[in-house]
Amino acid sequence: MKKSYLLTPGPTPLPPQVMAAAARPIIHHRTPQFQAVLKEVEEDLRYIFQTKNDVFIFASSGTGAMEAAVCNLLSSGDTVVTIEGGKFGQRWTEICRSFGVNCEVIKVEWGKAVEPKEIKSRIDRESRIKAVFTTLCETSTGVVNDIETIGKIVRESGAVLVVDAISGLGAVDLQTDRWGVDVVVAGSQKGLMVAPGLAFLSVSAKAWKLIEQAKSPKYYFDLKQAKKALDKTDTPFTSAISLIVALNEALKMLKEEGLENIFQRHKRMAQASRAAARALGLELFASTAPSDAVTAICVPVGIDGQKLVKTMRDAYGVVIAGGQAQLKGKIIRIAHMGYIDEFDLIVCIACLEKVLNQMGYKFELGVGLKASQEVFLK
Amino acid sequence: MKKSYLLTPGPTPLPPQVMAAAARPIIHHRTPQFQAVLKEVEEDLRYIFQTKNDVFIFASSGTGAMEAAVCNLLSSGDTVVTIEGGKFGQRWTEICRSFGVNCEVIKVEWGKAVEPKEIKSRIDRESRIKAVFTTLCETSTGVVNDIETIGKIVRESGAVLVVDAISGLGAVDLQTDRWGVDVVVAGSQKGLMVAPGLAFLSVSAKAWKLIEQAKSPKYYFDLKQAKKALDKTDTPFTSAISLIVALNEALKMLKEEGLENIFQRHKRMAQASRAAARALGLELFASTAPSDAVTAICVPVGIDGQKLVKTMRDAYGVVIAGGQAQLKGKIIRIAHMGYIDEFDLIVCIACLEKVLNQMGYKFELGVGLKASQEVFLK
Repeated sequence: MKKSYLLTPGPTPLPPQVMAAAARPIIHHRTPQFQAVLKEVEEDLRYIFQTKNDVFIFASSGTGAMEAAVCNLLSSGDTVVTIEGGKFGQRWTEICRSFGVNCEVIKVEWGKAVEPKEIKSRIDRESRIKAVFTTLCETSTGVVNDIETIGKIVRESGAVLVVDAISGLGAVDLQTDRWGVDVVVAGSQKGLMVAPGLAFLSVSAKAWKLIEQAKSPKYYFDLKQAKKALDKTDTPFTSAISLIVALNEALKMLKEEGLENIFQRHKRMAQASRAAARALGLELFASTAPSDAVTAICVPVGIDGQKLVKTMRDAYGVVIAGGQAQLKGKIIRIAHMGYIDEFDLIVCIACLEKVLNQMGYKFELGVGLKASQEVFLK
Repeated sequence: MKKSYLLTPGPTPLPPQVMAAAARPIIHHRTPQFQAVLKEVEEDLRYIFQTKNDVFIFASSGTGAMEAAVCNLLSSGDTVVTIEGGKFGQRWTEICRSFGVNCEVIKVEWGKAVEPKEIKSRIDRESRIKAVFTTLCETSTGVVNDIETIGKIVRESGAVLVVDAISGLGAVDLQTDRWGVDVVVAGSQKGLMVAPGLAFLSVSAKAWKLIEQAKSPKYYFDLKQAKKALDKTDTPFTSAISLIVALNEALKMLKEEGLENIFQRHKRMAQASRAAARALGLELFASTAPSDAVTAICVPVGIDGQKLVKTMRDAYGVVIAGGQAQLKGKIIRIAHMGYIDEFDLIVCIACLEKVLNQMGYKFELGVGLKASQEVFLK
């Protein structure tokens, strides 16, 4: 008997009622029965996105909706600002360049948040900037960016602000309309507690003006087609029906808890994770602005980070993430977003302590657990 | 109490073990556990596709994989042949034109299969044709095209042959390698008995040569990136994990039955559907080459086709499809592919008789059922 515990920053575990919903007999997507589901989902998505804008649903990974943002807003030869503070910030640059879009890249040291004033100076210097692409929570480093301040800066320029909130939506606050975020991209498999395979994208009136002019080739991700369908509570192509039915359940759970409570819960989980790491003598990778969705922790000198993750997973069934790209083996990432509760985190810290101990790392057994318990009891 | 019976040409009903698999706790996609699933799925997909080529899996609707074929094979300014015998043939033209590709369109009367010699004369007349895009089963009309003969014609030219087999794969024979089909596109929600949200694409060595030269912008559907990932039994972006786990179950069922038996089963189902229609005095819409995946039947004069479909669905829970585009209200489409068996079809015919009777259509009650019973007893 080996139980499994999933604490990765996407996919995240599924609530039983969401799993059960995904297993229901399939219904046809062009029926009043499915339209009723889609209508509820649309309304609840707008609540979670904190927007009055349309929220589009694609059958794709989150990256698909990132591409949708690029190919719908821009034409080859346009110039944008991209912010690279990790693997997912880099993805914006890669996608833009695939479509012939020039990128003014702001490189941010991995583990740090972008300085909003750097964005301001780029926009001031280069008047042709059509869009600024950034990331809410950079999953690869565990850092959260200050979207509210970035929103103020971008709003004053002609550019639209596009935020990859794939890792973070439904976990940390993102006030789409109040902060002036024109396009928000999200995915089903993180804070929204659904299996991967759905991606979302909200579009402001300001963004629609760019969309009207954009000439990049597109078909599957064409927002004008998607808009025509959405206006009839439909999708242009066959929906990922079972995932949308499951999403409907997950969104109801989130709405019942309420955004304020959700953010508080994630905050406490993050505090407990950080407290445990510190108590174990481990350094946080995010030196500024650690995210409430995932905690990145530096692997101590002398410990093989990849072996640590592998042993936790294969010997004990506790699945966390390692580092990506240049951080491979150097950090571990513990997710605490979506359907992960305080006792899941206790299990994770217990397992981390156990394996660190077995690997010869010196610390007093139980201090990580004690530190997190203290946070949860506050 | 109202039971529901789904006989639409996508989505099709899910076997209980496939539904149950979709409801399993989610596993992480970058683990040996998921790699083991992906390896089995890849092998079984090659069996179903009747190919030794790589079969790529996308988190998308089938249309996503159609776009993948276009944007990976072609550049703006290239010329291709597209065959339009229905809504899905037209989609090839639409996608190609979105990417600036010139289309030599062969228009086929809806309800008829393409004449392969028409393709030959187009290829002979226009030497720059890089690809021929066609459809295995045109779901909108219930017609199956003669891919074997088309394959022989295209093979002799420099062009690659791309077949949309979304509706048809795993229902009617498609000998990808033997018939020289370079790219086959499929989806999860038809013959493969899985919920919608996965699309597939196989690629021949001849097609790879075009891919190496193609300049259309792409990122999410980039086959070169997908190939790098596939070679490590991985996907470039987060997989639609639960759908792939479910697919693994469905493919095992299909493999156990065996392709020969599967095609025979679909053939008998189609014969029974046609026999029932004829016995009821109804005309088949597909005047030549009716498909074994779906039967399109003309709505008799004086009967409101949309009301017929709506009544069967909303009053009795039997869900069939109506006509699309110019065929709206004029035909009904009964699917008999995937997890639909002879008794499902009996239920459907019983319901069709019932509602036709209520709507005032004159026929001897039970003749449709009798005709299909006779086919099944043969």
